[in-house]
Formats: sequence, structure tokens, C-alpha cells
Amino acid sequence: MSPNPSSFGVSRRALLSALAVLPAVSGRLLVNTASAQTVTSAGLLPSWNEGATKQAILDFVRVTTDRASPNHVSPEERITVFDQDGTLWVEHPMYTQVIYCLDRVPAVAAQKPELKDVEPFKTVLSGNREAMAKLTMPDLEKILAATLTGMPVEEFNDQVKKWLRTARHPRWNRPYTELVYQPMLEVLRYLRDNGYTTYIVTGGGQDFVRVYAEHVYGISPEHVVGTMGGTTFGYDKDGKPFLTKEPKLLLNDDHGGKPEGIHLMIGRRPYAAFGNSIGDREMLEWTAAGAGARLKMLVLHDDATREYAYGPAQGLPDSKFGTFTPELYDEAKHNSWTVISMKSDWKRIFAFE
Amino acid sequence: MSPNPSSFGVSRRALLSALAVLPAVSGRLLVNTASAQTVTSAGLLPSWNEGATKQAILDFVRVTTDRASPNHVSPEERITVFDQDGTLWVEHPMYTQVIYCLDRVPAVAAQKPELKDVEPFKTVLSGNREAMAKLTMPDLEKILAATLTGMPVEEFNDQVKKWLRTARHPRWNRPYTELVYQPMLEVLRYLRDNGYTTYIVTGGGQDFVRVYAEHVYGISPEHVVGTMGGTTFGYDKDGKPFLTKEPKLLLNDDHGGKPEGIHLMIGRRPYAAFGNSIGDREMLEWTAAGAGARLKMLVLHDDATREYAYGPAQGLPDSKFGTFTPELYDEAKHNSWTVISMKSDWKRIFAFE
Repeated sequence: MSPNPSSFGVSRRALLSALAVLPAVSGRLLVNTASAQTVTSAGLLPSWNEGATKQAILDFVRVTTDRASPNHVSPEERITVFDQDGTLWVEHPMYTQVIYCLDRVPAVAAQKPELKDVEPFKTVLSGNREAMAKLTMPDLEKILAATLTGMPVEEFNDQVKKWLRTARHPRWNRPYTELVYQPMLEVLRYLRDNGYTTYIVTGGGQDFVRVYAEHVYGISPEHVVGTMGGTTFGYDKDGKPFLTKEPKLLLNDDHGGKPEGIHLMIGRRPYAAFGNSIGDREMLEWTAAGAGARLKMLVLHDDATREYAYGPAQGLPDSKFGTFTPELYDEAKHNSWTVISMKSDWKRIFAFE
Repeated sequence: MSPNPSSFGVSRRALLSALAVLPAVSGRLLVNTASAQTVTSAGLLPSWNEGATKQAILDFVRVTTDRASPNHVSPEERITVFDQDGTLWVEHPMYTQVIYCLDRVPAVAAQKPELKDVEPFKTVLSGNREAMAKLTMPDLEKILAATLTGMPVEEFNDQVKKWLRTARHPRWNRPYTELVYQPMLEVLRYLRDNGYTTYIVTGGGQDFVRVYAEHVYGISPEHVVGTMGGTTFGYDKDGKPFLTKEPKLLLNDDHGGKPEGIHLMIGRRPYAAFGNSIGDREMLEWTAAGAGARLKMLVLHDDATREYAYGPAQGLPDSKFGTFTPELYDEAKHNSWTVISMKSDWKRIFAFE
């Protein structure tokens, strides 16, 4: 099987529209945002404004953890799932993992000089944004395969860690790992404080997200479900075993692949699901189909000042990402899923504000 | 991809030699063996005889949980992995899951009468053991695909549960779920009491083992790593979402597939690994290759009176299963992996003794 770029959440349109604002590399240190977060018993979810949205979260936890409640959920069943891009952290101007892959091309070409004169690597190396904007999906496939596979697992982890320390978001000039939503960090911690296990269920690469999920979200590697590639077991020259990342797609963790990934990795139906796009629809439906109290929430990007406004907030179908479709919005309203307005529901967006 | 029967641990030779002793179905209730187990602080691992093997387990836990020890392991890193067939429960006369698949054929044929005159189903339905012994690998593939896939996940779980309630092991005339090794249940609990997460990492089907792992071993679904098949998300006529089990192999969790499965599902290297066969070799090597104290143990079936004697205990290569090969035995000795003698190290084998 060849790698499927859509599995990494690549939208060609999003890529093209975003290339112009790609960040320059700088040298600041990675900041651990999770450790900066504080949730006191005196003020639950302090970065959330009072209102129906915050109340929906508090009510869900109350009725599922109160032993006297008919909707009480036993601790081992307390599973919650969170999309990442656009739900836990910024997905503009482009999915962070795609930026990583493009940034990684020079290092790959340095190791394999024969790539320097081969497309699409030649174009990426040229730095010509106009030419890069014309890259096709097969081009992107080649870039993903070359930068995400072919190396031992540990080597890949080191490459991603190193990049995260230096890469900066073009708008805020901060590490991508600081661009996580403080209100969502508070929800993650609040759920864990109440016996819930918090899983990331992302269309992004499982191995990529695992590199930083523990530091950034407090979510350990075994609780990251993502698009899964195969590895191959082998031995080095000293007989030491190692795993090599292969360009073999096992599961595209998006749309229907999200419930499939949840079944594969967890084997239980979640009690709460958080998303922000049409790719999260099936995960929310799967969660909603269970008995008892189930929390279904969608983050709406409607704050152009503090973050971005796109999807229904900008009027459709003209949004840049267009992933929060009118269809999804209608389904959410029809089924009483909770839509989180970043503008109205969140007191602040980032920890550094 | 077509289903790979070897992924379910099917050895044609083991199948053939075992067909003669297939059990009749009877009506006793499933007994929850996990709840019958007791480990008091007064006597750790009470079903183990005193000696070097038991001491190796106690020493490992001591040096990895004592904060003052140079080999202390932080709680989130405390991962242990256990093979199932032959390590946690009896694998004779045949892997339990294969018996399930053969037993399931009449029900499948009742729903699809056209199968009754088609091989290999015709042969299995005939009950003619001699003819069944001549089934080929492609025949077995068809039986596995027909009995393990094609149905919604919940329906499969119900089918397995129902079978487990009635099926009996031919030698002991007890439910298969009672034929778990009491000393290993004590190790599982002892490790969990010391902050370790216990994972099953089996060549058997992940969904099959998950059905009973929580009741039998105290191991929850998300801690069962096995041979993985794909599912497909869809909607029923009322628009309710469901997952169908597909005859698509995602990962054959045996040999090198065990470290690959551990990486996929856990994303951390285990600190202890328990196995009993050549299929567990790579998992033990992968565990051993980590820094610090790592426990590597192999169960040797050398007790023909209380259980079975095969592998090195019977002289090779004449063993029926032959999975604990001379090569593995040499590797274990050479690398100081601990070999557990069922005969010498275990005071009792089963809880019902």
C-alpha cells in the first residue's frame, strides 16, 4: 500500500493557501505548556466563560461520576476522545505535521543527494512558494513518504523533537506546542481528575503526535490514536533489534476511520468526544450512539481576532479550510451536540495571553 | 488482503493431531477465575515454589519500584507484556480460538445454507475427524474468515461469550476460561499492585481475547494487543452507526509482529515480557534491548502429569507443538532469560486444583 496523504490530513487547498506564510526557523526553546496549566478546585475550567457550554461539561462529569446518578459510569469505562488539529491546537495556516514534512525535505535531500534534482523535492528545495503551490497530491505523497518513513522509530522521534524546539508559528512566532488551547487543556485535566482517560484521536500521524503529546497535553503514547503506519522489526549490525517506519498505511484515522481506530486501539465506546470538522463527524456519531449520558462537542473557529474565523463562522463554502461544513453544523444542531464558540465561550485562547 | 490463518496461531499439524479430542458442548456456566484469585500481602505469589524463578520476579519488582534503586522505573513507564496461549492458559489440544472457529461452523452454515455443500464447510459439518484432519491451509483460511468476520463487532462479542459459557476442554471437562495458570494470575496481580500495566500480546485475535480478558485476567480491552483485523464503519437501516469485522489483516501479532504491535498499541518498550514459544522470541529480545532491569521469562511445559510436556521437555523435534525450539532454549540460556519450569516452579497449575 502506498501512503495516503489524506491520512495525514493534507488538504491540497489548505496547503496552497498557506505556503505564503510558512515560518522561518529560529532558535527558541520548546516550552512545556502543560506544566504551566493550573486548575484549582476553587475555579473549575477558569478559562471558560460561564454559560451553557461550560455547564454542559460540568453537568456531564457530575451525572457520570455521581454514584447515585442513573447515568453513573464505572471508572474503567470512562473513555473520552479528542481530535487534535483545530480542536486542541491551531491548524492554521496548515496542519503542523505538513509543515514539518516540508521543513524536513532539505535534511532528507542532504542524505540522499540524488533527490535534489528530482521532483517534487527540487521544487520544495527551491523555496519558490509559487511553484510549491502547484504541487499535486502524488507530489505530496512522495514528500510524506520520504520524511515520515524509512528510518528507525527512535530516529524519527529525535527528528521531530529537534524540529519542535526550533520551528515557529508565523503569526505568533512561538513554538507550535505553545499554540494549544488553554480551555481545552483545562477540560483534559478536569476529565482526568474525575477518573476519565483522555485519548487523542487524530487524522495526524500517531507516531508524530506521540512525540509531544505527553509534555503538551499530559497524554501518554498509549493514549494517542492516529493515522497508523506499519513498522518492520529487524536487527542492526550488532544484533540489536529495532523497528523501521514503513510507507505502509494500516489505518487512515479520519472520518469512519476514527471509530475504527477507537475500536482497534481502545475497544470501548467513548463517553465524550470533541472535534471541530467533518472528519470528526463519525466519531461523534459513534459516541452519541451509546446509552446513557454522552457529551458531543464541536469547536467553532469564530474568533478572527484572537485566533481565526473559518467554517460556518465565515460563511460557507468560502472558508479556507471548510472542514466544519453546513452539513455538520445542521447535524450538530439537530442532535443537540454542543458547539463551542471560541469567541464567546473562551475567556482566553492560549496560556501565554 | 485475505485473512492469514497463521495470524491466528493456527498450525496445521497441531490442528490435525488434536482433532480427535475435540470437546462436546455441555451446559455449565462460565466461571470467573480472576475473582477466585487471592494474593495476600502475607504470602506473595503463593502458587509459586520458593526458588530462583520466583525470586527473579520479586527482585525485578523490588529494584524497579524502590525509589532509591538505580533501576527505578517511573510509574508511567511500567509496561509488562504477556503472551496468552501456553503462557497464561492451556494451548493443548489446540489453540482455543481455532476450536471456537470449528465449533462455529454449524451456526454459520445455518445462516448461509449454500455453504453446507461447499468445502471445507461440508467436511467440518460432517464431523468426520479423519476428513477434517486433511483440511489444508486455504481451507482453514476460509473457516477463519467465515467465523471471525462479516458481522458487527457486538454480534461477534455475543457469539464468543455464548460459546465460552458452554464449551468444555476435553481433558478437564471445564470451561476454557478456567484453564488459566494460577501462578500467572498471581504474577499479573502482583505486577498491577506494584503500578505495572499488564498487557496481553498474543498471536490470537485481538477482538476474540478482549471478550474474556477482563473477567479472566483482569486485563481491560485497551490492554489486549493481538492479531488485528480491520473493521468498517457504516449505518444500519435506522441510521445507527456500527462497525463490521472485515477479513482484512492489519497486523499479524506474532514473531516480529509482536514488537510491531507493541509499538502500534503502546508506544513504549516493556520492562517485562512473558512467553513460551518461538513466536515470543522477538518480543523478549525487544524487551531485553532496553536499558535498566528487564525481566524476560519463558514458560516451559514440562509437567505431563498436571498439564502437558512438550518442547524441550519432551526432546525435540518430536514435540507436538514444537514451538519452544532448541534455538529459543539456547538463546534463553545464553542471555540469562528465566525459564519457568511448570513442574518445579509451580505449586499448583489451576485455581480449581
